[in-house]
Amino acid sequence: MNMMQASVLSHSTFEVREIARPSPGPGEVLVKVLSCGICGSDLHFHRHQSDLIEKARALGADVSELERAYDTGVILGHEFVGEVVEFGPDTAFELEIGDRVVSMPFVIKDGVPVLIGSTPELGGAYAQFMLLTESALLKVDRDLPSEAAAFVEPLGIAVHAVNRSGVTVDDAAVLIGAGPIGLTIAAVLKARGLDVIVASDLSPRRRELATAMGASQVIDGARESAIAAAAVAKPGARMVIFENTGAPGMLNSLVLEAPQNSHLTVTGIPAGEESFLPMLAITKELSMNFVIYYTPEEFAEALAMLRDGKLDWRTLHTGTVGLHQIPDAFASLADPEEHAKILIDPWL
Amino acid sequence: MNMMQASVLSHSTFEVREIARPSPGPGEVLVKVLSCGICGSDLHFHRHQSDLIEKARALGADVSELERAYDTGVILGHEFVGEVVEFGPDTAFELEIGDRVVSMPFVIKDGVPVLIGSTPELGGAYAQFMLLTESALLKVDRDLPSEAAAFVEPLGIAVHAVNRSGVTVDDAAVLIGAGPIGLTIAAVLKARGLDVIVASDLSPRRRELATAMGASQVIDGARESAIAAAAVAKPGARMVIFENTGAPGMLNSLVLEAPQNSHLTVTGIPAGEESFLPMLAITKELSMNFVIYYTPEEFAEALAMLRDGKLDWRTLHTGTVGLHQIPDAFASLADPEEHAKILIDPWL
Repeated sequence: MNMMQASVLSHSTFEVREIARPSPGPGEVLVKVLSCGICGSDLHFHRHQSDLIEKARALGADVSELERAYDTGVILGHEFVGEVVEFGPDTAFELEIGDRVVSMPFVIKDGVPVLIGSTPELGGAYAQFMLLTESALLKVDRDLPSEAAAFVEPLGIAVHAVNRSGVTVDDAAVLIGAGPIGLTIAAVLKARGLDVIVASDLSPRRRELATAMGASQVIDGARESAIAAAAVAKPGARMVIFENTGAPGMLNSLVLEAPQNSHLTVTGIPAGEESFLPMLAITKELSMNFVIYYTPEEFAEALAMLRDGKLDWRTLHTGTVGLHQIPDAFASLADPEEHAKILIDPWL
Repeated sequence: MNMMQASVLSHSTFEVREIARPSPGPGEVLVKVLSCGICGSDLHFHRHQSDLIEKARALGADVSELERAYDTGVILGHEFVGEVVEFGPDTAFELEIGDRVVSMPFVIKDGVPVLIGSTPELGGAYAQFMLLTESALLKVDRDLPSEAAAFVEPLGIAVHAVNRSGVTVDDAAVLIGAGPIGLTIAAVLKARGLDVIVASDLSPRRRELATAMGASQVIDGARESAIAAAAVAKPGARMVIFENTGAPGMLNSLVLEAPQNSHLTVTGIPAGEESFLPMLAITKELSMNFVIYYTPEEFAEALAMLRDGKLDWRTLHTGTVGLHQIPDAFASLADPEEHAKILIDPWL
């Protein structure tokens, strides 16, 4: 049996295990993982997995599958680029062995898309090999580095957030939080031609990165208001505010501070309930939307943006680790001064 | 000095007073009030005026004007139709004495729109006469009854709510609460051609009214879910949910129950803070918007809808009272079995 190394998360602990290399089923291909980004949602899942189970239970959901994943272990990793190594039955061979590919993190099982890394049976890219659905693969151009291709997925999130926000070049954009999502949103807004992109973050390093990614102005959120700065920079413009922190109380603050007719796009995930004053939201006729996914078209647009040099991914890429260093990387990412995006090379 | 009767609200109490008839300033006309609807926001203001002052104070606002209004008294009434009786200086005389008119409830003072009924100096239509800005007047056709014209303003709210919701004929609409706003939204959705309009209300009478106004199905919200019913009526359609109750906890319930990609338009005003789980809103990619106003175009569209017979206002009009009966009318409106819209005739 062909074996591989994988970092398995069970009971909130990562462990590198020697496990069987998966075998591609009908319509599937086996890829060798070349690079995989560590996503904020991986950090969130690692930190809050048992809370999530309790919350789902409280909402009346069947949590048996969540508990099985917690006990048996899952392999995370959905920001990946890989190299085709084997075709399963019923594949079209439209790509060749050795082609580098990216894919939305879903595998089609019995006609239904299943999220990669969500069950013990369907591992993600914190491993040396993984399965993907052939029809979902996008080929990576030869001159795009693998490290760049690992940014397709998070950039797809940003493209989607910007699309769903309805922001136009006439608006003033405000970014609350300049982590990986906020930073890629800045790059997308810049690529779309917005002139006022005010980014707020508590970290000086993150503010530097925001400027590099396309923010027209950066603000220390502890001392100044990004909304006030945007109102000065583009008086009278509608404000589109991207909340990327998930910090408790932030939604309420933004409803309080947002000017008339503002729109709020929420990408940050608070762990619990948040409260706000609907009366204020009504009086100001605010709108909000909440985003997490992207469409296949947006995923492909993100790949095209990287190919066209529209994302300065080298500035965002602050470190690379092997499978054994994942726990250290998760700890490092808690310090925004140190890292933006850490990539995993499972062959290190 | 010409006098008039007006119902003045001070210290949370209505009192009919004999006061000076206002005199039209530059650009203004004096109108004789023919009919005025009692709005849910009037009920809300009457019930929560002192809370509102405390809330505004807690938010750090200057409340001296709010306190002055509370002490000196204001004249409510913004759903009105009147008859032109006198032109002030610098008016264009584009209308004639005796013409019936409606207007958005703002008067232009020094170039700034001021909300009618918001200060002791600018009274609303719970009175025999009131001032309006000539350039804002819309003439009412001769064959539209005055009682119908009193519905232009609330219908404008509904037109705006529907426009801002982004609802299309491909969507399934859900109305939570079939008070005057919910009922007029049902009429607008019906006029726009939606086939699935599921209205939920606790009151049997309100459910009857909802059917009359255009709901395709009505649900007793205490026993069944309007969202579940809409999902059955139009499987796979995007759901657009209008929350018109302002009931505590309702927003949280709707976020919990709304299917993937739903949109929530909030017209109901909860008195205090509301909490919800953003994580659910994010996972489901929900969007929300909060509405209270309308544009001049939407106000004119509401008048046109009434002229074209698109609102069965006679069914909504459940009573008429004089100025002295306003306190009784406010009490009656607490019982949804009894009344939908009560109009005030200040000459009764």
